[in-house]
Amino acid sequence: MDTPQPRMRWWGWGEDGHDGPVKPGAKKMLNKVCGRSAGVVNPPIDLDDVQLPAPALPPEAFARIAELLGAGHIRDDHARRVSHSVGRSTPDLIRLRSGVLSSAPDAVLYPGTDAEVDELLAICQEERISVVPFGGGTSVVGGIETVRGEFSGSVCISLARLDEVVDIDEESLTVTVQAGVFGPDLEERLQAVGFTLGHFPQSFEFSTVGGWVATRSAGQQSTGYGRIDAKVLGLRCSTPTGPVELRPSPASAAGPDPRQLIVGSEGTLGIITEVTLGISRLPEVSLPDAWFFPDFHSGAAALREMEQTGLRPDIARLSDVNETAFGLAQLGSGVQRKGVLAVLRARGITTPCLLVLRYDGQRASARMRRADGRDIAKRHKGVSVGGSPETMWEKHRFSTPYLRDQLLTEGTLVDTLETSAPWSAIEQLHDSIGQEIEESLAKRGTPALVLCHISHLYSTGCSLYYTIFARQEEGREIAQWKALKTAASDAIIAGGGTITHHHATGRDHAPWIPRETGELWVRMLRAAKAEADPVGIMNPGKLMNGPDQL
Amino acid sequence: MDTPQPRMRWWGWGEDGHDGPVKPGAKKMLNKVCGRSAGVVNPPIDLDDVQLPAPALPPEAFARIAELLGAGHIRDDHARRVSHSVGRSTPDLIRLRSGVLSSAPDAVLYPGTDAEVDELLAICQEERISVVPFGGGTSVVGGIETVRGEFSGSVCISLARLDEVVDIDEESLTVTVQAGVFGPDLEERLQAVGFTLGHFPQSFEFSTVGGWVATRSAGQQSTGYGRIDAKVLGLRCSTPTGPVELRPSPASAAGPDPRQLIVGSEGTLGIITEVTLGISRLPEVSLPDAWFFPDFHSGAAALREMEQTGLRPDIARLSDVNETAFGLAQLGSGVQRKGVLAVLRARGITTPCLLVLRYDGQRASARMRRADGRDIAKRHKGVSVGGSPETMWEKHRFSTPYLRDQLLTEGTLVDTLETSAPWSAIEQLHDSIGQEIEESLAKRGTPALVLCHISHLYSTGCSLYYTIFARQEEGREIAQWKALKTAASDAIIAGGGTITHHHATGRDHAPWIPRETGELWVRMLRAAKAEADPVGIMNPGKLMNGPDQL
Repeated sequence: MDTPQPRMRWWGWGEDGHDGPVKPGAKKMLNKVCGRSAGVVNPPIDLDDVQLPAPALPPEAFARIAELLGAGHIRDDHARRVSHSVGRSTPDLIRLRSGVLSSAPDAVLYPGTDAEVDELLAICQEERISVVPFGGGTSVVGGIETVRGEFSGSVCISLARLDEVVDIDEESLTVTVQAGVFGPDLEERLQAVGFTLGHFPQSFEFSTVGGWVATRSAGQQSTGYGRIDAKVLGLRCSTPTGPVELRPSPASAAGPDPRQLIVGSEGTLGIITEVTLGISRLPEVSLPDAWFFPDFHSGAAALREMEQTGLRPDIARLSDVNETAFGLAQLGSGVQRKGVLAVLRARGITTPCLLVLRYDGQRASARMRRADGRDIAKRHKGVSVGGSPETMWEKHRFSTPYLRDQLLTEGTLVDTLETSAPWSAIEQLHDSIGQEIEESLAKRGTPALVLCHISHLYSTGCSLYYTIFARQEEGREIAQWKALKTAASDAIIAGGGTITHHHATGRDHAPWIPRETGELWVRMLRAAKAEADPVGIMNPGKLMNGPDQL
Repeated sequence: MDTPQPRMRWWGWGEDGHDGPVKPGAKKMLNKVCGRSAGVVNPPIDLDDVQLPAPALPPEAFARIAELLGAGHIRDDHARRVSHSVGRSTPDLIRLRSGVLSSAPDAVLYPGTDAEVDELLAICQEERISVVPFGGGTSVVGGIETVRGEFSGSVCISLARLDEVVDIDEESLTVTVQAGVFGPDLEERLQAVGFTLGHFPQSFEFSTVGGWVATRSAGQQSTGYGRIDAKVLGLRCSTPTGPVELRPSPASAAGPDPRQLIVGSEGTLGIITEVTLGISRLPEVSLPDAWFFPDFHSGAAALREMEQTGLRPDIARLSDVNETAFGLAQLGSGVQRKGVLAVLRARGITTPCLLVLRYDGQRASARMRRADGRDIAKRHKGVSVGGSPETMWEKHRFSTPYLRDQLLTEGTLVDTLETSAPWSAIEQLHDSIGQEIEESLAKRGTPALVLCHISHLYSTGCSLYYTIFARQEEGREIAQWKALKTAASDAIIAGGGTITHHHATGRDHAPWIPRETGELWVRMLRAAKAEADPVGIMNPGKLMNGPDQL
């Protein structure tokens, strides 16, 4: 029977064999800031040793589902349940590798058609079974955790069999695609006929179209190619009370946009089964560029000018002082690193901030934009270092998450989080988030190394993306993570940011949603949900129905 | 007391003294296609002769409101009530000028602060008074018609006193502005410091920021500067149960976007009191260009290529054969027109379609884009005619609505309507809408002249905008209008379009909303509304609570 396996290994990111080493320079930096980890080694336990609640789907419900889907499309073996139990947030990984999961789906279901998804949700509603939709399982915000609660059972509905690229409309530059199609499969189909979606989130290799849309995702090239919410022209969403079907429309004034209520609904309203997305022609060239700035302020000012003058690099990523230092320590050899630093010192740059850029398009116009970008970078005291840092970054751009697994094994807690804000708030926000994270962890005796970069430019603002390292508090890793997450999230809201620019809400960001958007909006969202999902079976415990605190 | 008058004359569009003549050539064309109007002349009656239901606000409610706002800020004189009774749709104008209005607000209220709007809505909810928010009163879809129904009274809340530009954030390229600020006033403030919103709907002179946001408006330069929904970063919306306050955010993944539920809500959820919008730097130059194409297909193909290659003209407007002919008849002298047609015939063009374009930006890059655009136009068999047709169009772009008033006086029914669709559906949709309108009116013995243009380009599609002329059926003008409107709307939905690209929904498009988006979405929207407005006082009879048929 055709029940595709999850593409990621059960206990961590991605596939085996891709873990790159933490380089000596980076280790030295971690030890210096965070203190040497006490030699603790925390390897993941064996899959068989993971403790799960016994599967407990009522037999009648099991039988109804098996009859609908075919017996081979309902699976409740241990491995399948573990691999669909949680996503890939830091607390998810801590729990997975320690083998203590508080919840797991009773079964994983594999519908093969839109109509089967419709019927499945109707059955789950009747049987009072909670439902978690599952694309690639890459959520880093607790978005796919099973909640059994008062329900008679809980299932995970995998979209793995909805894996067709339905139509490429070359005239309208759109693709209609089923929700379960993975990033690389879609890009392969599009690029074969000269197009690209241009959507490359860090999870690209393991995440799906449906997941991108459900989480309001933004890819690493969103500065040039746009966020997923700007690409959605039409969609189909199954709900327990029937489907919402929205025709592809480039733009409309027909009331509030229903697409924008379903985009970002994270499975709480229903299951997105198909979407129509805007696509782009493949660029003739992609021109890399890279600069070192004497400080974060100068680099941010250069980026702002590039975006606001309409230059619009397709990729733009400015690392702050810490992230630049860590990147040099991790990516270059010691000799290379010292050489770079010496050259920069000679140019008066002692706290370098690295900017990588990419310009896509027709050769002539991409070159012109790069030339214009170089003028701007120079005016803001940038020092050019050619294109190789961008090429190097791009080569490794999907492999950074493996580092987290490896560091967790070695006793280092790693987390990432992000926000966005108007340009006028960015620098103060950058500083305050970093300080609050550092204080929250210093207080616990585990000083943090906090890295940050700007990416995802808009004329009106940009995103800030943080990576945090600290020595693990053995046995209290979750409490430690909660402390840093709470400190960061409070600082984001206090500083005028959004609780998430592209990671979505899930369980982990839910407590801050009312603080960002107000209680009335949350009540309105719940009311709309109650119409589509009156029993509340759809992804409970997330977003508008998430917890009040971590 | 400070209760500003509406800016438009009570019986028609705009201000007196701007009515341009219908030129002989255009009259001749109308007579030829539609048949000579029977010499009927329908001037508007006197304001004093307009029949209104007597004002009937319960005295206790009147007193509470007067106490809150100050007695001078509640007005129920005849003139004020007439000028706030309906918008400027064709049926609105027919009713206004005949002096028979089925409804009018009992009073017009002028709150002066956000807090007063909050309190006013709370009072109206307690007193069961229906509320119509009023910006400039330019709705062409029945968006501001009073519904008394089972309510104890009905009021119009004018935003005229919320007229401050609160802040221009030059670093983030945003403006924060109160809802009652009119287009020209905002542009004056922005342009004085080197910026523009770039939002120029045909109603620009008489419409407000709040109205634009509430109706999900798009301006004539939206191809370059973007639609209003893409400009909204933050907003404040008073509802009967309290305000929704959304901080300015360039982008977010924090669940469904609450901004996009309030944008386009047309006063049915609450009253938008303040918004933060993205702005642009004033362009160094605006370069006009214009082309004649041998047919609509060639012109559409050229526009599609311009947009999809990233050239992005800031204004682009392609008239079909009928609109081009009417435009030549109306704008040029007979000699000019014959000269143009002779030149085109010599180039093999017998059914010319006029394209006007504008390229804004830095001089060098605007020139380059225009040069690239010219290459594309030539490849699609376009014949260049310099920039003057664009300049001419721009000069008259806000005065076309006056023509409608004049033609109504002369016995000719005029209506406009619009849609958008993916490029692959556009040409068939263009033909089918036109045919259905023509058939619906021919059947009634009033053959129609139907003009259309493409404007508002997106990489994935564009909008179609229709102007319809027919001899009025004296005494049955509303039935005649309903017939053409129903035929056009049915054709739009059948052909894959949206019921409105930028006119909004109001009362007139409400019957087609469930057919476009499905009943479930309408129920979800109603549920969200019930949370903000449980008594249902906010702009009843519109959008999700509109009629099932015209």
